[in-house]
Amino acid sequence: MELPTKVRWMQDLLPDDHKYFTFLKKVFRHEFRKNGFRRISTPILEKKELFVRAIWEWTDVVDKEMYNLIDKKWRELVLKPETTAWVMRAYIENDMQSLPQPVSLYYFEPHFRYDRPQKWRYRQHHQIWAEIIWEKDPILDAQLIYLGYKTLNQVWLAWDFKIKINSIWTPKEREKYLEKLKDYYETKKHLLSQDALHKLEVNPLRVLDTKIEDEIILAQNAPKIIDSLKKDSKEHYKKVKEYLDIFWVEYEEDHTLVRWLDYYTHTVWEFIDDSWRSQNSLWWWWRYNLLSKAIWYKNEIPAVWMWLGAERLMEAMIDKWVKLRNKDRIDLYFIALWEEAKKMVLPMSLKAREAWINTALSLGSPSLATQMKKANRLKAKYVVIVWIMEAKSGVFQIRNMLDWTQEEIKKEEVLDFIINKIWKENLNFYSPLNDLILD
Amino acid sequence: MELPTKVRWMQDLLPDDHKYFTFLKKVFRHEFRKNGFRRISTPILEKKELFVRAIWEWTDVVDKEMYNLIDKKWRELVLKPETTAWVMRAYIENDMQSLPQPVSLYYFEPHFRYDRPQKWRYRQHHQIWAEIIWEKDPILDAQLIYLGYKTLNQVWLAWDFKIKINSIWTPKEREKYLEKLKDYYETKKHLLSQDALHKLEVNPLRVLDTKIEDEIILAQNAPKIIDSLKKDSKEHYKKVKEYLDIFWVEYEEDHTLVRWLDYYTHTVWEFIDDSWRSQNSLWWWWRYNLLSKAIWYKNEIPAVWMWLGAERLMEAMIDKWVKLRNKDRIDLYFIALWEEAKKMVLPMSLKAREAWINTALSLGSPSLATQMKKANRLKAKYVVIVWIMEAKSGVFQIRNMLDWTQEEIKKEEVLDFIINKIWKENLNFYSPLNDLILD
Repeated sequence: MELPTKVRWMQDLLPDDHKYFTFLKKVFRHEFRKNGFRRISTPILEKKELFVRAIWEWTDVVDKEMYNLIDKKWRELVLKPETTAWVMRAYIENDMQSLPQPVSLYYFEPHFRYDRPQKWRYRQHHQIWAEIIWEKDPILDAQLIYLGYKTLNQVWLAWDFKIKINSIWTPKEREKYLEKLKDYYETKKHLLSQDALHKLEVNPLRVLDTKIEDEIILAQNAPKIIDSLKKDSKEHYKKVKEYLDIFWVEYEEDHTLVRWLDYYTHTVWEFIDDSWRSQNSLWWWWRYNLLSKAIWYKNEIPAVWMWLGAERLMEAMIDKWVKLRNKDRIDLYFIALWEEAKKMVLPMSLKAREAWINTALSLGSPSLATQMKKANRLKAKYVVIVWIMEAKSGVFQIRNMLDWTQEEIKKEEVLDFIINKIWKENLNFYSPLNDLILD
Repeated sequence: MELPTKVRWMQDLLPDDHKYFTFLKKVFRHEFRKNGFRRISTPILEKKELFVRAIWEWTDVVDKEMYNLIDKKWRELVLKPETTAWVMRAYIENDMQSLPQPVSLYYFEPHFRYDRPQKWRYRQHHQIWAEIIWEKDPILDAQLIYLGYKTLNQVWLAWDFKIKINSIWTPKEREKYLEKLKDYYETKKHLLSQDALHKLEVNPLRVLDTKIEDEIILAQNAPKIIDSLKKDSKEHYKKVKEYLDIFWVEYEEDHTLVRWLDYYTHTVWEFIDDSWRSQNSLWWWWRYNLLSKAIWYKNEIPAVWMWLGAERLMEAMIDKWVKLRNKDRIDLYFIALWEEAKKMVLPMSLKAREAWINTALSLGSPSLATQMKKANRLKAKYVVIVWIMEAKSGVFQIRNMLDWTQEEIKKEEVLDFIINKIWKENLNFYSPLNDLILD
């Protein structure tokens, strides 16, 4: 009988993947923290109702692209496919309105989409989000863009990406622009695909978002939304650009860059990689001042956010040869070939770990040859061999696995010898005492 | 219309919870890494079949206590309620048998149980696991116990807990013991609860696991499984205890400590907190040499593991007043009361963050009073106030929010002043360059 394998289009995150994930989480945690963001997680299962309200126009998405579930009390739940709606839910439900505003939150969590996945786009994938809630100041739009740029810089990817920005105004203001856009396309309908014609009918802004070459040309020549901006929106957009200049962030204006849900407002932006294969955006941001109204029918709570896929970012790092140190690598491998030797090296292995040396022991009743092979495969830096003779004399053999030299060293001096050999910066020093408050 | 709230018995992990979670993950990552463990994650959705195989005897658990889901291809899936079976699945499916053995993995992930939850036992909760696969050596049982003790020590909780151990042998060997146990209870049936009588019928070992006082007394006087151990099992158990002595780990033997699934073998152990309220075990371990056979019907792959609930551990820390520093706290708050002042402090805020100072800015067009109040609520350590005068003269006012002293300092010297005031160890220094390999 066969083993029940993992579900199709799902993935195990193996230790080498976690090497990247742990690094990315660390970079984001530190960068976001310096900017006043704090981490939040919302549950993986949430009520379907909320998502339906948030994307009201696109209800087919809910059933086609999501994992739905009815629980034993007949509640309709979803495995959450995105987070904006639920972070807003958490903000309202946990009364974060009583905190000093704005509230800046970030987020690193699994999400679920039941769609046909591409490479690195699994049905369970991880998204990195950051949101600033309760504040309209355009400085935040600029600050988020800068923060994205800064973070990409930290993971050594910034120079491959360019930043595109645009403003899409508010839904009410853009009504007139949409009329203009329709007029423009009216005479060009014969050049549009079925898909584009449908978009034109339902949500004309979406026609600008296309991968078809002819349609891209049409979009570039279409009336520009920024030319129709009115006073407040114009001022918001102008300030975002001024602040970006102060941040020394280079950007390109692209009036075909749009978002089409009704609660998106003002600034939209993306990080684009020209060398990217099929999807060339790595990172997205926009304002959604009107989301809270959509899901809550009450106050308008302005907000701005960005998100990117952790797997996509990992792929970009691998593609562009950004390499990470393997901190899990074994520094020291004890080979004890005799029960008494085992009991002798056991306390030494504990002390080695206290000194932040990653340490492994031979197990069972192995032969020296098998164990040396294993130490080799583990890429251990040093091997200490203890046989009957060594256990009796207290003088151990230490083998340097890089240059294959061997030295004899007294038992008591083994650890100091290793610590001196391994550079301090290679040890993963961390003391929980730094984080604890001890009275 | 009301906001759709979070699903009942689910929780948001708020920033203050993440303070604990981030700390715990760091402690576990470092402790496990030093012992050769690497992190793994398996998907949240997995096939139901695997779990049914793993707990064949208890199929009612599958439907009653789990979140089940049928996907659009009619696959029966579950939101995973535990991990042993799936880590074994991942081990086999990802061909980890070709790696140097044993493979040591750890794990920090959400899990789901559809049961009536108690405090801190939400329907979505987080479990910390560690497993060592492919090796029978009793040294690993002892090493894991020591690792648990060590980790509890790191989070400042070790002294409140005691360690209980027992051996439950292999299913085949324990058949005779189970006969003895049945005989013992035969004459005492009138003292047993309905529940215990049922257990006696189905799986007599479980009778020993009870919270009812009378039954506890009966269990303590029942025949001891360790008295029936045969040669190999006896030797295994003896060695575990010898190694524990070498590790200087104190333990108590408790022959009523049992696990009853057929694939559990040999050593079982728990960390028990006497001061605990209702459930007094914090942490569990056992060997499950026979799991692979149960789910795969092929080879026997020995393994040993431990797990604990992250929320429970967090609760223990809070209960026992183990406090953590708030690393998210704002060090420096810029109050710019004029558009030009804003543009002046913006580049300073970037530089401050480069110097690892958590920095926030006033936003919008606020008043000084509101902003001082906000800085206060954020517990900012220093506030820099820039008004028209300051922007023009280039001399800023810096207020120390702890002692309410105020100094005037030249714009260029503000950052150095703050850096010198905030102790280095309070800055969250971390450089991604340490982790990157740059050619």
